Amino acid sequence: MSNTLNLPENRFFDPTPTHRQMAMELYQEIAALPLVCPHGHVDPRLFAEEDATFGTPAELLLIPDHYIFRMLYSQGIPLESLGVPRVDGGEVETDHRKIWQLFAEHFYLFRGTPTGIWLAHELHDVFDVREKLTGETAQAIYDQIEAQLARPEFRPRALFERFNIEVLCTTDAATDSLADHQAIRNSGWKGNIRPTFRPDAVVNLDTPNWKDNIDALSAAAGIDIDSYPRYIQALEQRRAFFKQMGAVSTDHAAVSAYTAELSTGESEMIFQRALRGETTVDDARRFTAHMIMESARMSIDDGLVMQFHAGSVRDYNTLIDQRFGANKGADIPERGEFTHNLRPLLNKYGNDTRLTLIVFTLDESTYARELAPLAGHFPAMRLGPAWWFHDSLNGMTRYRDQVMETAGLYNTVGFNDDTRAFPSIPARHDLARRVDANWVAGLVARGIVDREDASEMVNDCAYRLAKRAYNLGE
Amino acid sequence: MSNTLNLPENRFFDPTPTHRQMAMELYQEIAALPLVCPHGHVDPRLFAEEDATFGTPAELLLIPDHYIFRMLYSQGIPLESLGVPRVDGGEVETDHRKIWQLFAEHFYLFRGTPTGIWLAHELHDVFDVREKLTGETAQAIYDQIEAQLARPEFRPRALFERFNIEVLCTTDAATDSLADHQAIRNSGWKGNIRPTFRPDAVVNLDTPNWKDNIDALSAAAGIDIDSYPRYIQALEQRRAFFKQMGAVSTDHAAVSAYTAELSTGESEMIFQRALRGETTVDDARRFTAHMIMESARMSIDDGLVMQFHAGSVRDYNTLIDQRFGANKGADIPERGEFTHNLRPLLNKYGNDTRLTLIVFTLDESTYARELAPLAGHFPAMRLGPAWWFHDSLNGMTRYRDQVMETAGLYNTVGFNDDTRAFPSIPARHDLARRVDANWVAGLVARGIVDREDASEMVNDCAYRLAKRAYNLGE
Amino acid sequence: MSNTLNLPENRFFDPTPTHRQMAMELYQEIAALPLVCPHGHVDPRLFAEEDATFGTPAELLLIPDHYIFRMLYSQGIPLESLGVPRVDGGEVETDHRKIWQLFAEHFYLFRGTPTGIWLAHELHDVFDVREKLTGETAQAIYDQIEAQLARPEFRPRALFERFNIEVLCTTDAATDSLADHQAIRNSGWKGNIRPTFRPDAVVNLDTPNWKDNIDALSAAAGIDIDSYPRYIQALEQRRAFFKQMGAVSTDHAAVSAYTAELSTGESEMIFQRALRGETTVDDARRFTAHMIMESARMSIDDGLVMQFHAGSVRDYNTLIDQRFGANKGADIPERGEFTHNLRPLLNKYGNDTRLTLIVFTLDESTYARELAPLAGHFPAMRLGPAWWFHDSLNGMTRYRDQVMETAGLYNTVGFNDDTRAFPSIPARHDLARRVDANWVAGLVARGIVDREDASEMVNDCAYRLAKRAYNLGE
Repeated sequence: MSNTLNLPENRFFDPTPTHRQMAMELYQEIAALPLVCPHGHVDPRLFAEEDATFGTPAELLLIPDHYIFRMLYSQGIPLESLGVPRVDGGEVETDHRKIWQLFAEHFYLFRGTPTGIWLAHELHDVFDVREKLTGETAQAIYDQIEAQLARPEFRPRALFERFNIEVLCTTDAATDSLADHQAIRNSGWKGNIRPTFRPDAVVNLDTPNWKDNIDALSAAAGIDIDSYPRYIQALEQRRAFFKQMGAVSTDHAAVSAYTAELSTGESEMIFQRALRGETTVDDARRFTAHMIMESARMSIDDGLVMQFHAGSVRDYNTLIDQRFGANKGADIPERGEFTHNLRPLLNKYGNDTRLTLIVFTLDESTYARELAPLAGHFPAMRLGPAWWFHDSLNGMTRYRDQVMETAGLYNTVGFNDDTRAFPSIPARHDLARRVDANWVAGLVARGIVDREDASEMVNDCAYRLAKRAYNLGE
Repeated sequence: MSNTLNLPENRFFDPTPTHRQMAMELYQEIAALPLVCPHGHVDPRLFAEEDATFGTPAELLLIPDHYIFRMLYSQGIPLESLGVPRVDGGEVETDHRKIWQLFAEHFYLFRGTPTGIWLAHELHDVFDVREKLTGETAQAIYDQIEAQLARPEFRPRALFERFNIEVLCTTDAATDSLADHQAIRNSGWKGNIRPTFRPDAVVNLDTPNWKDNIDALSAAAGIDIDSYPRYIQALEQRRAFFKQMGAVSTDHAAVSAYTAELSTGESEMIFQRALRGETTVDDARRFTAHMIMESARMSIDDGLVMQFHAGSVRDYNTLIDQRFGANKGADIPERGEFTHNLRPLLNKYGNDTRLTLIVFTLDESTYARELAPLAGHFPAMRLGPAWWFHDSLNGMTRYRDQVMETAGLYNTVGFNDDTRAFPSIPARHDLARRVDANWVAGLVARGIVDREDASEMVNDCAYRLAKRAYNLGE
Repeated sequence: MSNTLNLPENRFFDPTPTHRQMAMELYQEIAALPLVCPHGHVDPRLFAEEDATFGTPAELLLIPDHYIFRMLYSQGIPLESLGVPRVDGGEVETDHRKIWQLFAEHFYLFRGTPTGIWLAHELHDVFDVREKLTGETAQAIYDQIEAQLARPEFRPRALFERFNIEVLCTTDAATDSLADHQAIRNSGWKGNIRPTFRPDAVVNLDTPNWKDNIDALSAAAGIDIDSYPRYIQALEQRRAFFKQMGAVSTDHAAVSAYTAELSTGESEMIFQRALRGETTVDDARRFTAHMIMESARMSIDDGLVMQFHAGSVRDYNTLIDQRFGANKGADIPERGEFTHNLRPLLNKYGNDTRLTLIVFTLDESTYARELAPLAGHFPAMRLGPAWWFHDSLNGMTRYRDQVMETAGLYNTVGFNDDTRAFPSIPARHDLARRVDANWVAGLVARGIVDREDASEMVNDCAYRLAKRAYNLGE
């Protein structure tokens, strides 16, 4: 019984020799390109101070990663035993070696999953681990990671440089002071880290504590938000500030992709009801639909690229939400609809070449049916990469197969790592580059595109499309 | 023109040599494992008497198999000419050789279908047929099967042993006396055959003759069911009896996966209306939704695994239903929804590790979008295998590709043959084992899992997951 | 940097050697079969006069082809600059060399798309082009095509013969005089060109100018349509005329697949409201649903095969519709539903073997879930091939993989090229034949069907199924 952790050089490529060889050849063209990371959830604080560290191996790799603990939870392992903090401050496991041991004993659950693939890559390439993670090897591997993390080469800024990250965009609340971003700039460190404007908490009226968020927005913008026009003015002011701090895009989430414009009177009426704490379900639904359109209008004005993520029912499991809070691996996708929902937005702004609207979905049945036809027609629309549960080997392959024939490669925007776990960034890009190299190699092997076009396509997938779509330079 | 019936040893494996070789290697590890059959529709009467027989070849293989006659009917062949009995006792073909001839002449319709694959396997492996079934060979093959069926080695119990079935669960109405199961036990024969509790006919208020079923339930439980509490008591009593007779699970079917809890008052009111024959469409819908939840509560109490099949519009073709009755190949799937429909159930019972809820779907668009994320989070939830129309080579492959990356292998429950035709059991398991071996081999060939993990995975798929999920021993 | 346009002989086949070799072998059996074209949009006028020509290369290949200009438009290229005529007669580019240049410079957008594949095939096989289309080669290629088009061998009738088209069905409004078809017949030319009866513009009450269309129908039928019975009579009369002119089928489009029968009173009431210009949204919806059923009834009477295309939201982009008119690449699919929508129709007529109802969808999630189970049961129902956005390499492959196991090959109807661009016909059939050969070769390579059955199946796919389904001779 072998315990060697081995990452085959030609992993994830089709086993047919001609296909595999072409995939390897194309992959080698792009493997070492810098990483462009236009969308993710890395905490900018990691880079604000030169001496920031990552904590213990469990703090770095497990406790904050809902991709990992959701799977353990699904097999009956309580989140408390994994050290996930409780909202009420109740007791949870604090022995990180014990947490790591429990995880290692169940690492077999991740066989064939992207989480398993990313983690193996991180252990191997970032931490030089050469044994498979199991109950037996758990403590030795913990020792090894712990020792590495103590070295200066494993501080966030050092890894940022080692990972060859050309640009990293974080995701920041509309009310954020961007103090960490400011600190990074002030420090003189050269890492290109940019904020992204995410206004969900002040736009979606059904956000818990929405009124507090509006107060924070008032404070941040220096505008007393007592009316809809002032609210819009505050948002525009914040966008301008984010842009000045380097932001290239905004990010918007909604359960449904519904868009619809309200009259000025209606906007004001709904907004006033919300200020008084009298929001109805229908108010929230209509106001979000309106604000998506309004955000597109602002993007046309200020040039920020607009990202729109629809389809996730957040914090679905009430027990987990109450005990551990939001974002604990219990977000569940629902059926999506874009054709009718986006029509008001696309009819009003979709023909405007000043707008770049990047749409993401969790419902793959909309790829070929709705999204590819829309992106293959409207100049303002682009398709975001395979998202979240579909950011995986099969998920990315299905995306390519279902989207490309109708939308073409050039109405897509390259790869987003969308990561929370900073050290997983190279693993995620490497997987995407391998999948893309393999996909294009398949087109060559079947005589669909020639070798010359294939080179262009893999370079576009790995690097150029993301830079172009997010205005990060040609 | 060759008429040889030939089953290649490496059939269904990917033709790429490295992939195929690995698939063969993995298949050989599991090909001879005993068959675990936790869900199916074999008539227990076949095993109640030592001397039971299967009838003619047409009675064994065609007349009761809606997979077969639906395809013939779709091409304009009247069910009467295939010997399918009419509700009104009207004339149908009784010459089983003529029926067989008609079938053989149209056997080309099954090219590339799972029915075609299973039947070829049965003919070859069970009945030693070595010629392709065509109009020319029809009668000779009939002779051969008829001769085999006359031998004692072809009685049901003998085939059960020859097939190496470790355990076979049947599906039985809540009102069933389980007399056949009792007879099997009394006979001293060692075959492990267990009932499954299926209460649809007393739970779904829109079942034709629901009130008669309630009367039968009263009689079976020895409880006069005149109120909702007594109804619940009768169901619990029957479950206890089934459990005592060896049942390990219950089975529930509904068109929609809708779940919702009624108050005690509402339950009683709807139940009383039903007793008076005044059920409304909405009553039936809400009562089923409530009883799905109530059944989960009972499972937590008595430990029976709960199976839930949603999405089939039964007996869609009125003409066929009126002329030939239910289950005649005219059940048509409808669009499914699980995220919102299961939320009440999962929020109430989904975090309880005493419950095992196995969910099946006919809408593949819910695999990656809804079911895999749900099963990858809730401890109580597992995913049933690719069901019915999707219990096929491509169907099982799509299931693996769309489910595994998010739910992992260990939130699935292995294979269910779901068979009506007893002699097709080995063919169905063999197909599933080949598909699984080929799927895991693909993971090895692409460097996603290593050889050691691959062994574990194929053994889990073929044998261990089913035993574990259905509490049939480790 | 190579500019050679090269079409590999074994293109589109799986690169695994055994699979590819079998695909090549099967393809060679069918590559030269005559083309059967039962559904498309070629203008019959092209064949009405012996000396008809195609115009400039841009007029032939770009300006009328929304598959091409939608992609260019999606990347910000105004339709005016592509010479697409404006409704208001406003200025658009008239220099066809300039249009061609712009197209050539953006031809990379079509990498990996069916449009790219078809166009490469046309350039290579029809016009003998041997260089890739780029900005540099644009004018030389224009010269070459222009020169070819000037030759008598490139007139429509000559190409029809060179393409080996056995039969070509056009699509014609219910009110069409079929004068071009008459002219073809009168000319003595032997090309087998047939009309298809498409009544959408007189059936869908929300058609712009519906009343004008009814007036045209009155005139064409010689019946004063002032009541619903006379309307039905006029339609029946027109169908009889089309049939006499060679039509074998009718074609019906609707956004939804909803079917439902109205009472005679309701039909008359809705029809009278429509005559008065007082149609409601609900009227239109219900009348279409009713007329789909009524058309099936007529098909049973007159034997015309009924085609039903559902799921496209036409002219979705209002700006484009107002500026350039209908059919400008802005038709977007919506989610489909067939199980409940077709039930009234199938319950009334689906068991009648005199009816052939061919159903097309743009929602692939309905293939395995709804359409294959329906076609695998009802004698009257067949599935049309992968349609529109799915008439592509991946689209056709997904269709086969998702439909065949449940419906079987023999409930499908072969290939429809559905073309607008006449010279793309051979390219489209060749792609379909290659995909089918490759699909069947995969079944052989995996031991699912034998070599003998494979021959039958590819010949069915390429030629026989279409002839049989459309009553074009065995």
